[in-house]
Amino acid sequence: QEDTLVPPKTNLKWFETISVGGYVQARYNRLLETNPQLTCEQCDGSWGDGNGFSLRRVRLKFSGNLGDYVSFYIQPDFASSGGQHLGQLRDAYFDVSLDKNGEYRFRFGQSKVPYGFENMQSSQNRIPLDRNDALNSSIRNERELGVFFYWTPTLIQERFSMLNKLGLKGSGDYGVFGFGVFNGQTGNSPELNNKLHVVGRLSYPFLLGSQIIEPGIQAYTGQYQMPTGNVSNGTMVNNDLNYLDQRVAASFILYPQPFGIQAEYNIGKGPEFNKETNSIEVTPLHGGYATLTYKTHIGNQVLFPFTRYHYYNGGKKFERDARSYEVKELEIGVEWQPVKAFELVAMYTISSRRYEDFIIRDNLQEGSLLRLQAQVNF
Amino acid sequence: QEDTLVPPKTNLKWFETISVGGYVQARYNRLLETNPQLTCEQCDGSWGDGNGFSLRRVRLKFSGNLGDYVSFYIQPDFASSGGQHLGQLRDAYFDVSLDKNGEYRFRFGQSKVPYGFENMQSSQNRIPLDRNDALNSSIRNERELGVFFYWTPTLIQERFSMLNKLGLKGSGDYGVFGFGVFNGQTGNSPELNNKLHVVGRLSYPFLLGSQIIEPGIQAYTGQYQMPTGNVSNGTMVNNDLNYLDQRVAASFILYPQPFGIQAEYNIGKGPEFNKETNSIEVTPLHGGYATLTYKTHIGNQVLFPFTRYHYYNGGKKFERDARSYEVKELEIGVEWQPVKAFELVAMYTISSRRYEDFIIRDNLQEGSLLRLQAQVNF
Amino acid sequence: QEDTLVPPKTNLKWFETISVGGYVQARYNRLLETNPQLTCEQCDGSWGDGNGFSLRRVRLKFSGNLGDYVSFYIQPDFASSGGQHLGQLRDAYFDVSLDKNGEYRFRFGQSKVPYGFENMQSSQNRIPLDRNDALNSSIRNERELGVFFYWTPTLIQERFSMLNKLGLKGSGDYGVFGFGVFNGQTGNSPELNNKLHVVGRLSYPFLLGSQIIEPGIQAYTGQYQMPTGNVSNGTMVNNDLNYLDQRVAASFILYPQPFGIQAEYNIGKGPEFNKETNSIEVTPLHGGYATLTYKTHIGNQVLFPFTRYHYYNGGKKFERDARSYEVKELEIGVEWQPVKAFELVAMYTISSRRYEDFIIRDNLQEGSLLRLQAQVNF
Repeated sequence: QEDTLVPPKTNLKWFETISVGGYVQARYNRLLETNPQLTCEQCDGSWGDGNGFSLRRVRLKFSGNLGDYVSFYIQPDFASSGGQHLGQLRDAYFDVSLDKNGEYRFRFGQSKVPYGFENMQSSQNRIPLDRNDALNSSIRNERELGVFFYWTPTLIQERFSMLNKLGLKGSGDYGVFGFGVFNGQTGNSPELNNKLHVVGRLSYPFLLGSQIIEPGIQAYTGQYQMPTGNVSNGTMVNNDLNYLDQRVAASFILYPQPFGIQAEYNIGKGPEFNKETNSIEVTPLHGGYATLTYKTHIGNQVLFPFTRYHYYNGGKKFERDARSYEVKELEIGVEWQPVKAFELVAMYTISSRRYEDFIIRDNLQEGSLLRLQAQVNF
Repeated sequence: QEDTLVPPKTNLKWFETISVGGYVQARYNRLLETNPQLTCEQCDGSWGDGNGFSLRRVRLKFSGNLGDYVSFYIQPDFASSGGQHLGQLRDAYFDVSLDKNGEYRFRFGQSKVPYGFENMQSSQNRIPLDRNDALNSSIRNERELGVFFYWTPTLIQERFSMLNKLGLKGSGDYGVFGFGVFNGQTGNSPELNNKLHVVGRLSYPFLLGSQIIEPGIQAYTGQYQMPTGNVSNGTMVNNDLNYLDQRVAASFILYPQPFGIQAEYNIGKGPEFNKETNSIEVTPLHGGYATLTYKTHIGNQVLFPFTRYHYYNGGKKFERDARSYEVKELEIGVEWQPVKAFELVAMYTISSRRYEDFIIRDNLQEGSLLRLQAQVNF
Repeated sequence: QEDTLVPPKTNLKWFETISVGGYVQARYNRLLETNPQLTCEQCDGSWGDGNGFSLRRVRLKFSGNLGDYVSFYIQPDFASSGGQHLGQLRDAYFDVSLDKNGEYRFRFGQSKVPYGFENMQSSQNRIPLDRNDALNSSIRNERELGVFFYWTPTLIQERFSMLNKLGLKGSGDYGVFGFGVFNGQTGNSPELNNKLHVVGRLSYPFLLGSQIIEPGIQAYTGQYQMPTGNVSNGTMVNNDLNYLDQRVAASFILYPQPFGIQAEYNIGKGPEFNKETNSIEVTPLHGGYATLTYKTHIGNQVLFPFTRYHYYNGGKKFERDARSYEVKELEIGVEWQPVKAFELVAMYTISSRRYEDFIIRDNLQEGSLLRLQAQVNF
């Protein structure tokens, strides 16, 4: 008796099916620094006093297409855990298609939640060093455990793929339509309540002559439970620690041929520390950003001068006491790719960040700094 | 002067010698749940109240045959550490053969202890979602640091290998005869006492017409030291925290062509919490299971309807206070492999679990739940 | 519009660019042990009482040349973290050359600090099981986050490469001239002060007839900040916890054709616990070692009988209270390579180690033990 599962059409070796790649980002954030107290927990822990060289991301990617219907993607990161450099998952998901062309896919495991274009865009491709606070305050590390459904017609699959092949800094294929349910405590954090989050997204890359624009809209809702270890003694909280966590965002992208625009805005409600009442309360939040880029070449080398302004007013649920934030930040910089495998970014950041919790009560930090990043892609 | 080590016969590239593979299991255990207090620390931490989607295993395997005498196997898991998804070793061992055919092998490093067929069988192949408590309470994660010797005649090497190629859910090759010494504190836990454990095993796959049966017998003995961090304040313990840890098990397997039986039973002694005396004492333990499977096909797809009953009465040395257990569990389900790379398991579990330590004193939890798993193999 | 970055000359597959390899070391240190209290925190945590089988290193290496100018190297280890076997970075760096021949290279990320030949030499190649205390007390795990510059003329690149191909246990290519700046808190430890360390090194492999000798000189200086978690209650410290950390070392290597010498000595200043004053003070330190080896063959198998004596008097800044050390150790052993992929080392160690901090106050441990290691290379 033989195993009757369909054998792969050709007798592929493991390395023809599975591929290994990754990237590394090394940084130095201390040049021209005007305020060593200005820090940014979520975007980069190596800002400010007492910091030096750092690794922001050390990623290994293992991925592959396993026949016509199944693919997988596993990506650990070795730059997590406060400088200890332990390996921790980012992605671990697999896609199962309902059709041979992969137009209708279910995604299982830990993967990016389809909320926000910049959130979907890989840090390997993004030009500013960190994501904007406004949309990235939604889901730490952009990822969650859940089940997602994506629909992408073949034509648009090719378009999403082309955007990255041309070096236009696309998001990859998160569907023209995406829908999913997920735990809602953000990635690599155990689920705490019995309520799942729900997310939906529409995004379409239109061809307008030789230009491509991609407008999008997305929203999610759910109940977030404050982990007790993240609540200071003395902070007042809801009985069950559960808080409404709800957002909607609009996106607009003009891909840089050569001039590019990337802009997003979101509004919503979520837990936020209130220093008047010493309590965590459901509070409105809003904010967004606009990035302007210009893709140009010097000989065979690629240069991306860029500027980004972003603004956020709201809480960060996954920080201490759902820390209260008001962020205004302007960045001006350039990404230089002398060869495919290597990129250098220099970015001058002018920042005003108010971030307050039960312990750090009145904390408006303003200043500027020059940030440098060297990146290898493999 | 040239290095005179024997060069490999053919000039192999690294990817012809080393291969990369793995699998991922994503789960949801909350459907049709009748008792949210019913949990199972060892088998799956995402049962019950406050849980949602989870990753049970995220495995990457790096392995290879390095010439005629040496092979290696390294397998980290990224689903450990309570939802934090840090990378942690499962296997890291290498085999050194005394002969070119690999009939006599020594195994060094962290690897599975040859105790129990279901323990040896990979979770990638096992049909029920988790191992039975009776035999799996012997060694957490089935692995230990040590040195093991395996003897497998060439003919039986081929038979073990064929069992998995035919999709018959074999254990892999842990020898017709196995013997080993190991630390005895279970894998990824530091050794604490100066006493090694000893294990021995006999298992032989007989060909009976077109059917294959594999009876086996195995035993181990040693002294287990309770880690102080695992003993509650107030629990009475032996002076040196050392406890006899001793088991013997019988196994019987009829491989599913198409009807399969897998049954094992073990008896022994080990540390167990006694709630009458508030102490950890060496106590008899016993238990086993029987799994019935049927391998069938719908077109090119494979289906494995199955049922398992398992029972365990004894302690779990690696849990708090060597927690006292009495488990009765009936499972009915089906594994569906629409394509080689993807499997879905749905399993209805009817469970009665008593588990008690110094803190949780009277704790009999009964209930049932539907468990779902999606798995990708690469 | 097409991306104008230079395409790779040939259309390489991922596995032709990236390669995966590694090695595993399994050990047993308890034979012929005369003093179970004799331990060595830095060199091998599995010496002495309560220990058994252990994994000293489980390394996976991902590396590749990405075109003419860029290469990368990522190496996690799975034997760290006190027996828990979590994955943690050792190396994560990438080299960017200024010229096509790679003579002038900048190295970004976490990599070995060019201080000491034995520190540069891979543990995969080193014959004694652990590095000498004298030079290895400089930088835990030999690695730091920083930026380094290396200059290696093409001729010497080939010589460095040949030394390892011939099995002569070279250091690899850390330049004829090396220079760098780095955080200074040692690898996988977050930077604490705002002061970078600086290091410089000269090392040249001379051809003398058929023999190769490599003299070298190296030095580094910086301010080390004691981490508060590493200072016992009651220990007196500098106000800002900062201490001068400064060393210079000389190296001499005669590669084993067949008789080899490897000798190094360093002097310097650094934090050290003083049990008279209960304080951590900047104190002079000095020490070195000499290793004698003989490379011989039995048929196609390689044997390296060896002996090493090493001495160290000074502090270990990265241990509790900058623990005070005086080490005298003699080792006699043999490395046996029956085949390329597998090595066995047996090493008899006669040791006198005084190591004292605020808690362990008078602690001179003397004794001897037989140490065994099995290693697989892939």
